[in-house]
Amino acid sequence: MKVVSTIKEVRDAVREWRKEGLTVGFVPTMGYLHEGHKSLIDKAVEENDRVVVSIFVNPTQFGPNEDLESYPRDLERDSSLCSDSGVNVIFTPQREEMYPEGFCTSINMTGLTENLCGKSRPVHFGGVCTVVTKLFNIVAPDKAYFGQKDAQQLAIIKRMVSDLNLNIEVVGCPIIREEDGLAKSSRNTYLSKEERRAAVILSKSLKLGLEAINSGERNSRNIIELIKGNIESEKLAKIDYVQIVDLLSMKDVETIEKPVLVAIAVYIGKTRLIDNFIFEI
Amino acid sequence: MKVVSTIKEVRDAVREWRKEGLTVGFVPTMGYLHEGHKSLIDKAVEENDRVVVSIFVNPTQFGPNEDLESYPRDLERDSSLCSDSGVNVIFTPQREEMYPEGFCTSINMTGLTENLCGKSRPVHFGGVCTVVTKLFNIVAPDKAYFGQKDAQQLAIIKRMVSDLNLNIEVVGCPIIREEDGLAKSSRNTYLSKEERRAAVILSKSLKLGLEAINSGERNSRNIIELIKGNIESEKLAKIDYVQIVDLLSMKDVETIEKPVLVAIAVYIGKTRLIDNFIFEI
Repeated sequence: MKVVSTIKEVRDAVREWRKEGLTVGFVPTMGYLHEGHKSLIDKAVEENDRVVVSIFVNPTQFGPNEDLESYPRDLERDSSLCSDSGVNVIFTPQREEMYPEGFCTSINMTGLTENLCGKSRPVHFGGVCTVVTKLFNIVAPDKAYFGQKDAQQLAIIKRMVSDLNLNIEVVGCPIIREEDGLAKSSRNTYLSKEERRAAVILSKSLKLGLEAINSGERNSRNIIELIKGNIESEKLAKIDYVQIVDLLSMKDVETIEKPVLVAIAVYIGKTRLIDNFIFEI
Repeated sequence: MKVVSTIKEVRDAVREWRKEGLTVGFVPTMGYLHEGHKSLIDKAVEENDRVVVSIFVNPTQFGPNEDLESYPRDLERDSSLCSDSGVNVIFTPQREEMYPEGFCTSINMTGLTENLCGKSRPVHFGGVCTVVTKLFNIVAPDKAYFGQKDAQQLAIIKRMVSDLNLNIEVVGCPIIREEDGLAKSSRNTYLSKEERRAAVILSKSLKLGLEAINSGERNSRNIIELIKGNIESEKLAKIDYVQIVDLLSMKDVETIEKPVLVAIAVYIGKTRLIDNFIFEI
């Protein structure tokens, strides 16, 4: 496995593979890899001849008061995980390699980006779309892998790839959870012991919501109230949003009649965590 | 030569060429081809094994009061010109092929887009960037050809290709002129006989400006006033802008010390025409 930091090195590696007719899978990450990332990498290794993982804490997708500086980093551990998993190239660019002086282009989306996380993080998805397009153009993979935990991001990337005619298959992969149900996230590392215990309220509350839907409840308001009530029973939790949205448009639905995403964002102390499930009707 | 209207057909054609190891040149146009376009096509044919020309009057780069509906179209004549020039594929998509229902992604640029034509046409360059990126992703050429007549567009496309890491070489080609000096443009067809005669004022005034610079004048204001004064001597002409800008940043310069673009936009009657020259110091 090679660890490279320049665009040229990635392109050179991929060009050689292409000459041999090999397929290329790509897993874009911000590093501090956990089993969620590992599940994406494993799928990429399984489905492609060669795999590139990018590790880049992209500054343009963080708002001014968000956790860009404190976002956890551990390239050594990440490299071991990648190497053990069969990754061929890790791409870890510096900020200047991705955003050289004079950089002034951005990719934006209306609609899908305005609800859920887009509401509380107004610059976030523009930053994500821009960096992902750049990475897609640098690596030029056949397939790229994203986690369902960032459900809105996945929907946005799929839409963007379609809108911009990028010739890449976007593969969504299921949420990986801790034993008690907490969705794996690099941000879990911010949690104190007490907060970590409290954080299980996200998945527990979603489970209640799913049970209600499975029992026939179709009124979004009732389900949202049920989930909210449960989250509020945890004193360390503060709700950012609990919403039920159409799986394609990310717009709120009143009654569940088509596939929906039930998505929540909750602060546990100062740490903002997200979780969700899809209900396919 | 094939004339195709779906993305799939273009991709299929290019894929076959790539299998044979052939290079691909691309000339994106809005059709109604003239000798300016032909010079781009000739260069593309000369420098590549296969050439794709797109003909698409892109609605998203026209403002609400601009000439989208009246923009001249003549696919039959365009096809002959392309066929005679050695083009392999013409791509003429319908609007729905490029912008299907739910389309919501756009590419925007700050800086370079805000001066010159961007000032009078605020949505223009966002529309250009978005459609050109889509076309680049559809055709995936080695090289793409643009005219220096749209100098700001050329600078923007080069910056965008660099910023988004598109793996395409952007080639700028010189302005092609009528015998009396008028820059070739599809919009020249709007001009009445009297207006056509008056339109020569653009290139004539620029020539005066160039002569002044060649004689050692370096003060932008003096050169601009000289050009403006000359344009105003033509009663059918109404100035949109006369500016001298840095060739890379498209920002106004007071004193000519680095390569500059001297660019003008002038209404002749209701028709807005542009022209420019580069001065390499």
